[in-house]
Amino acid sequence: MSTFPIPHSSKLLILSKFAAEYHSLLTAAELPNLEILAQGVSVSNCDIVFGEPSLIAPVLPDLPTVKWIQSTFAGVDPLLAAGLRHDYTLTNMRGVFGGLMSEFVIGYLLLHERKILHRLESQKNQQWDTTLTGTLRGKTIGLLGVGSIGTEVAKAAHFFGMTVRGYTRESEASEYVDHYFHGANLLAFASGLDYLVNILPNTRATQRIVNSALLACLPPQALFINVGRGNAVDQTALLQALEARSLAGAVLDVFDQEPLPAGHPYWVAPNTLITSHTSAPSFPVEISRVFIENYRRYEQGRPLNYQVNFERGY
Amino acid sequence: MSTFPIPHSSKLLILSKFAAEYHSLLTAAELPNLEILAQGVSVSNCDIVFGEPSLIAPVLPDLPTVKWIQSTFAGVDPLLAAGLRHDYTLTNMRGVFGGLMSEFVIGYLLLHERKILHRLESQKNQQWDTTLTGTLRGKTIGLLGVGSIGTEVAKAAHFFGMTVRGYTRESEASEYVDHYFHGANLLAFASGLDYLVNILPNTRATQRIVNSALLACLPPQALFINVGRGNAVDQTALLQALEARSLAGAVLDVFDQEPLPAGHPYWVAPNTLITSHTSAPSFPVEISRVFIENYRRYEQGRPLNYQVNFERGY
Repeated sequence: MSTFPIPHSSKLLILSKFAAEYHSLLTAAELPNLEILAQGVSVSNCDIVFGEPSLIAPVLPDLPTVKWIQSTFAGVDPLLAAGLRHDYTLTNMRGVFGGLMSEFVIGYLLLHERKILHRLESQKNQQWDTTLTGTLRGKTIGLLGVGSIGTEVAKAAHFFGMTVRGYTRESEASEYVDHYFHGANLLAFASGLDYLVNILPNTRATQRIVNSALLACLPPQALFINVGRGNAVDQTALLQALEARSLAGAVLDVFDQEPLPAGHPYWVAPNTLITSHTSAPSFPVEISRVFIENYRRYEQGRPLNYQVNFERGY
Repeated sequence: MSTFPIPHSSKLLILSKFAAEYHSLLTAAELPNLEILAQGVSVSNCDIVFGEPSLIAPVLPDLPTVKWIQSTFAGVDPLLAAGLRHDYTLTNMRGVFGGLMSEFVIGYLLLHERKILHRLESQKNQQWDTTLTGTLRGKTIGLLGVGSIGTEVAKAAHFFGMTVRGYTRESEASEYVDHYFHGANLLAFASGLDYLVNILPNTRATQRIVNSALLACLPPQALFINVGRGNAVDQTALLQALEARSLAGAVLDVFDQEPLPAGHPYWVAPNTLITSHTSAPSFPVEISRVFIENYRRYEQGRPLNYQVNFERGY
């Protein structure tokens, strides 16, 4: 039992709205050679930061010794800003949101197909309403972005008998995507879709990808769902399409400005549902598991999972 | 090319609200040795009837030569009535409703977990509402009845990571059911469920199976869904549980009396959604395919698919 010399102990700073819960979960995991810093102590000499990108970015200049940041979110855009240091290993959260995101997407697809809100109105009038239901089977869904989350959404859509199209930079990795599209084939990808789902991260290449040209390719029965990032959408174009009913509706979870301010036209746009960035919450127990696995790798000098390429942005 | 002797031609009577569509579909199929009777002609000498049980039952006494009735529905209870003849082969509709029923069940489960109606209220107030969403993963669903429809619902629940319990007379055929229950184990089956779904046909054995004793076993977060038949539910007990909030809610598609009359307490029961027997519509194209396959069997003297046992009731 060698206790000397005392091995170098890493110092972990937690910056999260669930900091207390993460502190308990990581303490209980008894990770070797890890000192979890208490709230409020001097943190300038920490090696590792674990938390929400929006909370970490403002203090990053005060953490000169940080070697690794583990995001609790999939989206890390606050840490990609041009003025910030990129001289550490950044890992994001993957593998835990796909299932939740699938439930979100399938839930709103079925809300639409099964005419659930329409039937609710009939019920208010105590009216027996046998309006024929739709079905997912045979419908076509297009996924803008097929990474770890998109693959799970593709799998669920495939399960329900949908035809799945995927638009990616170059990857064609998911077996559940029936047809892949890339680059200039964006409009061909969008043409004839019943459902368009944006799952892209916030990068320069995804800026306003859902614009008037793309929306014009969608048939009037199409529903648009945004669970990626607000930056992907040309808001004026989307509002125009919704107002003109050239689109059946939209389910919007993410926005350029969050919280979406009261008075914003999205709140009252026709056939539009606002879900306040709740599509794939970070459940601390699951998030902790990813940190713990990555910490073991870090401690043993092995490559970390889910490293973000600062250039590419994901 | 032998055209003599003319083979015996079967006479088909169609009794359906989609009779015109079925007439077209079956004519287009060019089934050998089949004469499809026109609407309004004398039909007393028909061999085969294809249609809705509620339309067939009243005229059954006037069809002395009928040999085979193919129902367009899964439920054939009007044809099981004690006073009616049972001296023909009755086949019901199977294999086409499971997918639709799965979409219905999963749609309403996700409506509940994702708090979609709650978020809709927040949107009306233009309120950014980050109420945490639930998830199907890890929840437990209990299926009362695991036949061809129940198996599909079990498969979908399994896909979303739910634990699946099945209550059946004796069958344990579905690989997607984690735990089977039978007979006197009904209350053990119900205990601790997050979701209880009735898919049972209308038989004597299923009469009021969802009664106060069973409802008392469900935890207060449980949701009850009835896509089987209205006869399975003790209405007074269910209304009491809903009023007392000892149940989270109900989604009711089928009723003792249909259409459910205006003024019925179900319309305004707490946390109750009424879906007017729309959970699994009979799409004529799919239904026709089952008839066509069965007709080929009939014409060749092979056993028909989906024969109903008059004794058992399904």
